[in-house]
Formats: sequence, structure tokens, C-alpha cells
Amino acid sequence: MPTANPRPFNFSAGPATLPEPVLRQAAEEMLDWHGCGMGVMEMSHRGKEFISIHEQAVATLRELLAVPSNFHVLFMQGGGLGENAIVPMNLAGPQPGGLVDVVVTGSWSKKSLAEAQRYADARAAASNDADGRSAIPAPGTWQLREGAAYVHVCSNETIDGLEMAELPDLAALGCRSPLVADCSSHILSRTIDWSRAGVVFAGAQKNIGPAGLTLVFVRDDLLGRALPICPSAFDYSVVAAHGSMFNTPPTYAIYVAGLVFEWVKAQGGVAEMDRRAAEKSALLYNYLDDCGGFYRNRVALTARSRMNVPFFLHNESLNDAFLAGAREAGLLQLKGHKSVGGMRASLYNAMPLAGVQALVGYMKDFARRHG
Amino acid sequence: MPTANPRPFNFSAGPATLPEPVLRQAAEEMLDWHGCGMGVMEMSHRGKEFISIHEQAVATLRELLAVPSNFHVLFMQGGGLGENAIVPMNLAGPQPGGLVDVVVTGSWSKKSLAEAQRYADARAAASNDADGRSAIPAPGTWQLREGAAYVHVCSNETIDGLEMAELPDLAALGCRSPLVADCSSHILSRTIDWSRAGVVFAGAQKNIGPAGLTLVFVRDDLLGRALPICPSAFDYSVVAAHGSMFNTPPTYAIYVAGLVFEWVKAQGGVAEMDRRAAEKSALLYNYLDDCGGFYRNRVALTARSRMNVPFFLHNESLNDAFLAGAREAGLLQLKGHKSVGGMRASLYNAMPLAGVQALVGYMKDFARRHG
Repeated sequence: MPTANPRPFNFSAGPATLPEPVLRQAAEEMLDWHGCGMGVMEMSHRGKEFISIHEQAVATLRELLAVPSNFHVLFMQGGGLGENAIVPMNLAGPQPGGLVDVVVTGSWSKKSLAEAQRYADARAAASNDADGRSAIPAPGTWQLREGAAYVHVCSNETIDGLEMAELPDLAALGCRSPLVADCSSHILSRTIDWSRAGVVFAGAQKNIGPAGLTLVFVRDDLLGRALPICPSAFDYSVVAAHGSMFNTPPTYAIYVAGLVFEWVKAQGGVAEMDRRAAEKSALLYNYLDDCGGFYRNRVALTARSRMNVPFFLHNESLNDAFLAGAREAGLLQLKGHKSVGGMRASLYNAMPLAGVQALVGYMKDFARRHG
Repeated sequence: MPTANPRPFNFSAGPATLPEPVLRQAAEEMLDWHGCGMGVMEMSHRGKEFISIHEQAVATLRELLAVPSNFHVLFMQGGGLGENAIVPMNLAGPQPGGLVDVVVTGSWSKKSLAEAQRYADARAAASNDADGRSAIPAPGTWQLREGAAYVHVCSNETIDGLEMAELPDLAALGCRSPLVADCSSHILSRTIDWSRAGVVFAGAQKNIGPAGLTLVFVRDDLLGRALPICPSAFDYSVVAAHGSMFNTPPTYAIYVAGLVFEWVKAQGGVAEMDRRAAEKSALLYNYLDDCGGFYRNRVALTARSRMNVPFFLHNESLNDAFLAGAREAGLLQLKGHKSVGGMRASLYNAMPLAGVQALVGYMKDFARRHG
């Protein structure tokens, strides 16, 4: 296999780094999957070969996340931004104009709110805009409306670097509406309490890998509510009834996701990913907090994301030098999102501890040279 | 590279066979694209590496199909069935209930009609249902309504094996509505007369390769008409304004499509694909017509698809033996669509002449042994 070894560490927020064994296997099987004479990209989605790949991916995913049998696992397209419309088209019915409450904790939930307003009476139940998106509003302060079609949260804000350690317990808040959680950028890094969830979705291109695949978990009783204007290809009921094969699914992305699921399982499952996420993120946050102010992260301790760590240099005129030196040191894609600025290190499952160690080592060295 | 050589010939209707050099290059670049230290699947879609891949793919596609500057080239998701809703959500506005005329020539256009009826007053302008889908209704007989938002055709019916040799000239029929053409399964096998087109779309998983990518060509004056309920991620105006990067695009599928575009160009472009399509399909149709009735194709000569050739054994009890023998001879995925039965050989651009020669050779041998 033609590749430089070791590879640089890639901190992209998504599409993002993939486990090297997954890429090697995909490369090896590109022309001929398991001796069938076809590559995965060339298989009919209705043939026995791809059906086995698809079923295995679903089964491993169910096992990894302990998905209960009353949840459907759907493989869809359109990403998180597509899902921002697909969710209300599916859940705000059967009549238009239902109530949707969105907890605004950053850029992603804000986009979800704006898109839901096309289909529903959607409002912010809470917002951290006023405090500079540094903390997650306490659930007790959320203004939840009686009879809302659903409550939306983004449990990890990729751009702002905030994360909910667990899904909120709406029942404990006296709310009977189903919870919709956008888990795009931390799925498979911690367990999901399914008893609190109605719909969980995740674009695969962050913590799983290939762009163009969206995972959607839908509780059985939430099927059949779609608005009449919901496209068939994006109607959860239709997709579920056809086993994600109403239209041609993104077959290669499903295959690669399946390889990632197997890799996670072989590493020790979600429990081990959880442990590593705690270890990796603590290493970086501890340095940020102890470095004496050369760098800093602005998020409250209780709301810090283990997946996406935005940080800022005290002297922002050094940003370009920091990024150039990082690239030379084999530390890629550290530039922050344009709406936030500064730097961002994404520490997804596929990022080894050694990558974070190398990053912190570089940061220390850079601070010493420019402090 | 671990692969058996030569590979079997794969006649799948889609996802379908890819050019071997494309697969080899994709495998070689899996862990490191052009020395950047990342595989294509791991790149931020906003980084300079992927932007160059994306821009190159668009430029080569524009060159191959001589796309005029007043057409936008969009890379979207959701496939043909998704597009069946996305087209009316974009073009049947600005008020709901616009008129949509659909020319029904087979399974795909029939699905397009049914989905358009969710958003518009959509009707069949013509239908070949009554004649068993053996011919394309003559344009002069189409019942086109004054002021229709658009007229929809499927210029190659993958399941039924019918193809329009050119896009219909609506102006010559006295119709001023824009033409929408679903070219999914014959795109890049012949030129497109853009003066006749308003929107052309194509799922990539048939004649280009990877599933999960939809190519959409939209004439500039057709932007800005979307219904209010059109999701932002599927609004042609939004997608065009963001250069297909409003949401994360299916990056790997775009990369592979770009490799296919380069391969087509290196082979001699669309003119050469056109010549080969004529040669390959003639070889198979000539044998079907001359074989003395052991096999037959039911489509009228003028409507026969060069891409998808359904055929039937005179004695259908031999179907399983035919398919088993074909597999042994290295001829894969020849079973017909379940709604049609019999056999189907898809002869997309990536199918070499040698594959069709091998198929006809096998068919002759099988007929001799069972005739």
C-alpha cells in the first residue's frame, strides 16, 4: 500500500480522520469485496452482497449503542442541515403549525430552530447567545410549551465546543413531548439513554467518517406523523418500511461506516471510546487551563465538549505562525471555524491519544518560543 | 494491489461497474491524497485540498457535456427518488398547485408523476402503459397544458429499457414551459442539447458510479421559484449560492465521480462514449433479433435503450440455469428488475466491448445447449 507512515494527525471537525485500519481495509477491498468480483461501490444495493454489508452495519451499530427494539435505525442522506427540515416535516404533523421548542446552545441548534420555523411554530426554549455561548442553559430554566410536537437539542455543538454529558430528562421537567437530539459530532463516544429519546440523528462525517450518510434512530410510535409535503424519500415511515432502501442508499458510505463500527467494537466498544474521550480531552483542557494564559478555552467547565475543543491564542497575531508550525509538525486542520476564529482541535474516536500528546507538545514548544 | 485479474463483467443496473483504473487510483490514494497526509474521505470540505477536487470535477463535467454558462452545476444528495420531490418543490412555485406535465414512459417517470402530485397539479401528458411500455409516445400526441410550471421526461428508463435519442423540443410543440429531464442512467453517454433543457438531473450511481450523489444542472432563470416548504438543503438557489457546500457534500462520491469524468475525457470524451454505446448495444440487440426466438427484447426499435437491455428467454423455466451459468462464466448481475422479470444487461460507459462480446458468446452457447 502506498502511504507514508506514520501519517500526520488530522484535527478536522468533519469530514474527519478515520482509523487507519479502516482505510487500509477499504483500499484492499476496492476492486473485489470478499472474492465476489465486484468492489462495494459497484454492487447493486439489492444484491445479497450489499444486503449483508448493510445488515451487518445495522446490527453492529445496534449492539454498540444498545439500541432498543422499539427504535428503527435508518440510513439516510442530506446531513444535519437536511435533517433540520426532515425532522419537522416528519414530527410537526399531521397538521402544519405544530409547536416545536428548540434549546439554543450554539450555531447548530440555532440553524435547527431557523429551519423548523418553515414548518412549525418553532421557538427557542432557552438560549446561551447572551452569555457568548459559554454554557448550556440549565434544563430547569427551559421554557417548554405544553403539547409541543417535540423538543430539539444539539447534544454536542461542533462549532462552539459545548457538549451535554447526557440527554436531558424531559419527563423530570414535567414535559411529555418527545426529545429530538442532534448527536452528529459525539455519537459513539458515549452511551445514549434511549428512555429519554424520541429521535436521535447524526451526520456520519464527524465521529464516524464518510460524508453523505445520516444515521437516524426513530422511536416506533413517532412514525406516521409526517406532513403531507414531506418527500417520500425523507419520510421516516417510508424509509423504515423499506429498510433504508426506498431509494438507493449511499452504499459506499454505509460500508465504510460499518468498518468503523467494527473497529470501535474491536477497540472495546463505546465504553472504551468514552474512556479515551475523557483522557484525550482532559489532556488538552488541563494544559489550556494551566498554561498561564498563552492559550485559553472560553467554555464553562461543565459544558466543555470532549470532541471539539476551540481555543484561542492570547496574542492572535501569532495565529498564522501557530498554524504553519503545526502543519510542519504534522498537526493538520487546526484552524477554528470562521464564525468563532482562533483554533479548534477535534478529538473524535479515530484520533489517537498520541495525536493529542503531539498537539500539546507542540503547543508547549510554541508558547515557550513566543511567550 | 490485491485483486484477481481479469475481473468478472458486472451488468448491474446501478450501483454499477466502475472503470478499473478509477478503482485502482482510489485505492492507491485512500490513505494519502497527493501527499497531503489525508485521505479524501478525511478532508474538510472547506479545505483547499477538497475544494480543488470539487472544482476540478465540476470543470471536467462542464467540459465533457459542454454545459453553457447559464446553467449551474449542483452536487446534491437523495438520488432520483429524492429529486422527484425536490424538482416540484423548486419549480412548481412560488405558489403551491402549479401545473406539471409528466410524460410517462416507464417505471421511473411514473414515480416522478406520483411524487409531483404532492406539490402540484401534476398529470400524465402521455403514457405508454397501455402498450406495455414498448414505445415512447410521439411528442406530437403529448397533452401539454398552457402555463405548466414544467414538463418532465425520463430520457432513459432504466427498468423498462427505453431511451429518448434526444431531448424533446418543447418549443417546436408550441410549449413554452421548461423541460425537466431525468437522465440518471444515460448521462455522459451522449450529448445534451441544452437549448431544450431547463433542469437536467442524474443520480450518479448508474452511469457514473458512486451512490449518494445527484448531479443537477439548473438553468439560471429557474432559480428563486422554490415553494416556502422546500428545505434549505434542497433549494436549488441556496445550493447554487453556496457552490454545493451549503451542507457537507458527499465528498468521497464527488471525488470518485471526478475520477470517472477524467477517465471519460481520457477515453475520448462523450463522443467516444456515444460511439461505444452504439457499438455495444448493437452487438446485443442484433443477436437478440437474430437468435431465432430463444431470447427476445420487447421494446420498439426506435425506443430501445443503449444503456439498459431487458431481455427474456423464450422458455422462462431456464432462467435460473441461465443466471447460474452466467455467474460461472464471470457475467454478474444479469437478473431483470423484479417488476419486469427476465434478464437485464446494463451497458454503461464502464462496461467494455469485451464484456458484451462475452455476454453474447455465453448467450449463444446457452441457446445451443438448451435450444
